[in-house]
Amino acid sequence: MIVDISKKILIVGLGLLGGSYAKALKRFGFHVSAVTKDQSSVDYAIGEKIIDEGTTELDARMIGEADLVIFALYPHTFVEWIEQNQGLLKSGALITDVTGVKGSVVYRVQEMLREDVEFIAAHPMAGREVSGVENSTVQMFVGANYIVTPTEKNTPEAIETCMELGRLLGFANVTTLSPEEHDEMIGFLSQLTHCIAITLMTCNDKENMEKFTGDSFRDLTRIARINDLMWSELFVANKEALLNQMNLFMDKFTELKEMLENEDIDGMRRMMRTSTERRALFDKK
Amino acid sequence: MIVDISKKILIVGLGLLGGSYAKALKRFGFHVSAVTKDQSSVDYAIGEKIIDEGTTELDARMIGEADLVIFALYPHTFVEWIEQNQGLLKSGALITDVTGVKGSVVYRVQEMLREDVEFIAAHPMAGREVSGVENSTVQMFVGANYIVTPTEKNTPEAIETCMELGRLLGFANVTTLSPEEHDEMIGFLSQLTHCIAITLMTCNDKENMEKFTGDSFRDLTRIARINDLMWSELFVANKEALLNQMNLFMDKFTELKEMLENEDIDGMRRMMRTSTERRALFDKK
Repeated sequence: MIVDISKKILIVGLGLLGGSYAKALKRFGFHVSAVTKDQSSVDYAIGEKIIDEGTTELDARMIGEADLVIFALYPHTFVEWIEQNQGLLKSGALITDVTGVKGSVVYRVQEMLREDVEFIAAHPMAGREVSGVENSTVQMFVGANYIVTPTEKNTPEAIETCMELGRLLGFANVTTLSPEEHDEMIGFLSQLTHCIAITLMTCNDKENMEKFTGDSFRDLTRIARINDLMWSELFVANKEALLNQMNLFMDKFTELKEMLENEDIDGMRRMMRTSTERRALFDKK
Repeated sequence: MIVDISKKILIVGLGLLGGSYAKALKRFGFHVSAVTKDQSSVDYAIGEKIIDEGTTELDARMIGEADLVIFALYPHTFVEWIEQNQGLLKSGALITDVTGVKGSVVYRVQEMLREDVEFIAAHPMAGREVSGVENSTVQMFVGANYIVTPTEKNTPEAIETCMELGRLLGFANVTTLSPEEHDEMIGFLSQLTHCIAITLMTCNDKENMEKFTGDSFRDLTRIARINDLMWSELFVANKEALLNQMNLFMDKFTELKEMLENEDIDGMRRMMRTSTERRALFDKK
């Protein structure tokens, strides 16, 4: 479906991600419309020719015309939108999302959704430390991962269309994972790292430390500047998987602490060598 | 003393740091000699004109002529060298070091040292992920911290000479801390961050994670490639201070885990806002 540029695309939520999607898709000539919160975002996006039309209202005509609807909202806002407004969607429409957690969203939305509309979930693993449509850029997707998380409710056609969308947006790696595999991976690679960074940044409030700070500490705390509204919601939405990762981390950290207490040099060296070997896998290819 | 270039400087241990010291000091015209383990390091350094002379022997003439001796060795090797060979030092010589931990080294060396030789400890906070004199470079010191850790046994002249050495080497910030303040700061900013990185790198061995890895995870684990021989020794040499920092971290991490368990969004958001504010202090100036 997606390769047919006569189809209309609607973006709900015209922020950093939604705006970047719009920019990427306009390059191919799609008709792109947007429903969003602020009139200023609509005005900016029309002025910059990022979208063809936009509104801050629940415009029945605009929503009802869309063949593909991309929800670029916070998880709970997305779920609420579907609950309240799914009646406005076109029969046969395909909807997708950008939500960073999957298990707590995908099944719930698929469960409540009309039979004649299909939801195929996706997570574009891209972001910036700034927000808003004014900062949107297709550069964000270069070299990044796009993960589609199908369930047994999805059709092969929807999965393929969603993967094609990822490729059109410019993502380097377009793959599928189950919602559970996705949440475990995100819990470990992204959420746990943010938990660690904010803990490191707040566990010792001694003054003047910054005078002696080197690159190591700066690297580990770069992501300690964090959008508290978004991340607290994402943590809770992935609670079980994240707690599991936090426990794995705590267990290993405790093991290291005990080796230090016992001055078990051999044990610490083994752990450091494993760390060194495993880290080599994660170098940028 | 240091500004008098007729004085002779000896470097014991011609590796990455020792070699970089030699390079920096040769720029000013000092006579620089070296005692080190491998003949290949001596040959390289003489060939590159980094040192005037060097040996792998305990050369009584070369050691006995030095006015300033810089020990660029692992902590236990430094302590053993002084135990066994301090009789070779010139009467009136000043000695300093590069050891990354202070409390467990400084008092012990000052305690056992001859009355006519003074030891003023220093920590050049600079390093690279490679080792050996072949990789030495004065660039390493640009923008970095040099910390002198005097005790009541030190004379004002020795402290000033050691600080002047830090400035000659090209360090951006030359300051003093007590050995205890130094060890607390290093325990937090450097050792704890390495503990976290190696724990993160080894706590989940699920395969194929690297396919989905983004910048956050790479940032937090860059230092997980670690010299196991050096760091295990440094951890044990700073055991009490590091355990204290590890406990502070664990307590705060447990607090965050409990907030997540209780879905205490307000509490998590407060912690994230504190983190964001505090991180701003640590941006590069």
